[in-house]
Amino acid sequence: MTERPDLPATIAVLGAGSWGTTFAKVVADAHPEVQVRLWARRPEVAEEINTHHRNAKYLKDIVLPGNVVASADVADVVVDAPLVVLAVPAQTLRPQLASWKPLLDPEAVVVSLMKGLERGSDARMSEVIKEELGLSDDRVAVISGPNLAMEIARKEPTASVVACTDEDVAQWIARLCTAAYFRPYTNPDVTGVEIGGIVKNVIALCVGICDGKGMGDNTKATVITRGLAETTRLTLALGGDVQTMAGLAGLGDLVATCSSPLSRNHTAGRLLGEGLTLDEVSEQMTQTAEGIKSGRAVLDLATKLGVDMPITEAVVAVLEGEIAVEELAPRLLARELKSEGELQ
Amino acid sequence: MTERPDLPATIAVLGAGSWGTTFAKVVADAHPEVQVRLWARRPEVAEEINTHHRNAKYLKDIVLPGNVVASADVADVVVDAPLVVLAVPAQTLRPQLASWKPLLDPEAVVVSLMKGLERGSDARMSEVIKEELGLSDDRVAVISGPNLAMEIARKEPTASVVACTDEDVAQWIARLCTAAYFRPYTNPDVTGVEIGGIVKNVIALCVGICDGKGMGDNTKATVITRGLAETTRLTLALGGDVQTMAGLAGLGDLVATCSSPLSRNHTAGRLLGEGLTLDEVSEQMTQTAEGIKSGRAVLDLATKLGVDMPITEAVVAVLEGEIAVEELAPRLLARELKSEGELQ
Repeated sequence: MTERPDLPATIAVLGAGSWGTTFAKVVADAHPEVQVRLWARRPEVAEEINTHHRNAKYLKDIVLPGNVVASADVADVVVDAPLVVLAVPAQTLRPQLASWKPLLDPEAVVVSLMKGLERGSDARMSEVIKEELGLSDDRVAVISGPNLAMEIARKEPTASVVACTDEDVAQWIARLCTAAYFRPYTNPDVTGVEIGGIVKNVIALCVGICDGKGMGDNTKATVITRGLAETTRLTLALGGDVQTMAGLAGLGDLVATCSSPLSRNHTAGRLLGEGLTLDEVSEQMTQTAEGIKSGRAVLDLATKLGVDMPITEAVVAVLEGEIAVEELAPRLLARELKSEGELQ
Repeated sequence: MTERPDLPATIAVLGAGSWGTTFAKVVADAHPEVQVRLWARRPEVAEEINTHHRNAKYLKDIVLPGNVVASADVADVVVDAPLVVLAVPAQTLRPQLASWKPLLDPEAVVVSLMKGLERGSDARMSEVIKEELGLSDDRVAVISGPNLAMEIARKEPTASVVACTDEDVAQWIARLCTAAYFRPYTNPDVTGVEIGGIVKNVIALCVGICDGKGMGDNTKATVITRGLAETTRLTLALGGDVQTMAGLAGLGDLVATCSSPLSRNHTAGRLLGEGLTLDEVSEQMTQTAEGIKSGRAVLDLATKLGVDMPITEAVVAVLEGEIAVEELAPRLLARELKSEGELQ
């Protein structure tokens, strides 16, 4: 590992949506002496953050600490930053990275906060980062867990996972983002942590649809259980670890996302379940429901690997208009009597 | 296995609380030709069921099918019943079994719907049944899963697990209780299925306390995740199966119980979190919150086996007045930075 300052003078966060802004706040709260530079695509958002210390569209009346400084110019944000945190929409990452590559510090570690799979390539965000920036495994990390951004912004106690194949790098990042209300644990299983964060959005759509159809907690708990089982199958097929799935970035994130009215994917599913069309749902929501975009890529990846993912398959069938939301639950529950092990 | 009629003329359910009554309804709905005899401790409840086909205290305005017949006389209920289903409070089971033993059909299979650990002996309900009735493993089964009784009584789609070491017996019971809205799966791991159903009540108390203190979904998801991890450790120490914990009777039941306002344990925890004393909580609730009674027994069992269960330990400390509810969450979250694997 390259020598890195234990506490860098500055770090960069690219993407001023709810999670990017909140993560910038976590590091800034944790280390008042570190300047956290935040890139916002729109200059008026950068202006609002610098002038009013707010990002009202995503974080309402939350006040950001003074050491969060925003800019709409990526070059200004990443210069000399030994840690670059990415929080942009999954489907735009690759072209953005191509243009950002020459600007980054050549020794920088890159962290993904993103929870999506690239359509077409079915690549995870860490894979896109490694490919586009030409980085080795020990320079790329992922942070994921039961991390509803708004709760963290409100300083509610939260645990999370920092995943990197290099334990020293993971520990370094974990120390940088340990705040009184934010407690990261390390995990070498980047694949499992990422897959947990991706598939939970698809499962949350399904639980949301069940909610919208007025189904009860027994049904939703069954969808969550089988949803984690199919996520685990995919993770294992990709070389990830079953233990990760039982942890904060697997089960934890899935449960938080499926329980919370703050979850975009859960909300999008609920609106679908209540009878809105996909277009109406997109119109009604200010933020991306990543599961809608990643669902097809997850299914394609599973198919390619020969992994059975019946919930994902059913959700994609709903999203692509093949089946009505009314048919979703019956399709999931109509199975022959069998032993439970055969389901897993 | 003894030859058993595929569809018996009668089955017996002992205990007319919410789950016992609901289970009687499931079998009666599934098989209109089977007489389901239900024992109620209080004659007026038996009378209400026979006359009005209701059990208003537990199931409000739910109408029971005509083939559910109640009695306050155990001998009447169990005579000639090849299947006897037990749904009485965990702490009273042993003395009741002693008096019922001479009345039971000598070939009967006994099923436990109960989710508690006997105080003092730390015995699971299947163990108490085997000991008191002198039955072999293939005559004792357990049913557990994400099974909020009121939702099942309303015919909302529900999955469950029938556990018996003898797969033929498990299949026989599963067929008897398969209704359009109730789908049981079989599992040979009686220990795991039982432990899942017991410990989730203690974890639900903790999640309820977090709710009562106004904590968010990130925190609750973390408690659920670590709660399942400590349940899994206990199960493994008792010879159960990690797969059971990832299934409907482990994760599924835990999530349903921790999500639902219908859960007694979740509700009891919430009231404690809101500042009520244990006595005030007991007064306010019509039904037993089993976790309050079993918590100490779970902790004793874990201690005996050398299993670390920090959430159970903290909940018991609250229940026994050693720490205030305010200290619960800080105690659970205050841990050194470490790798996630060490938590599991």
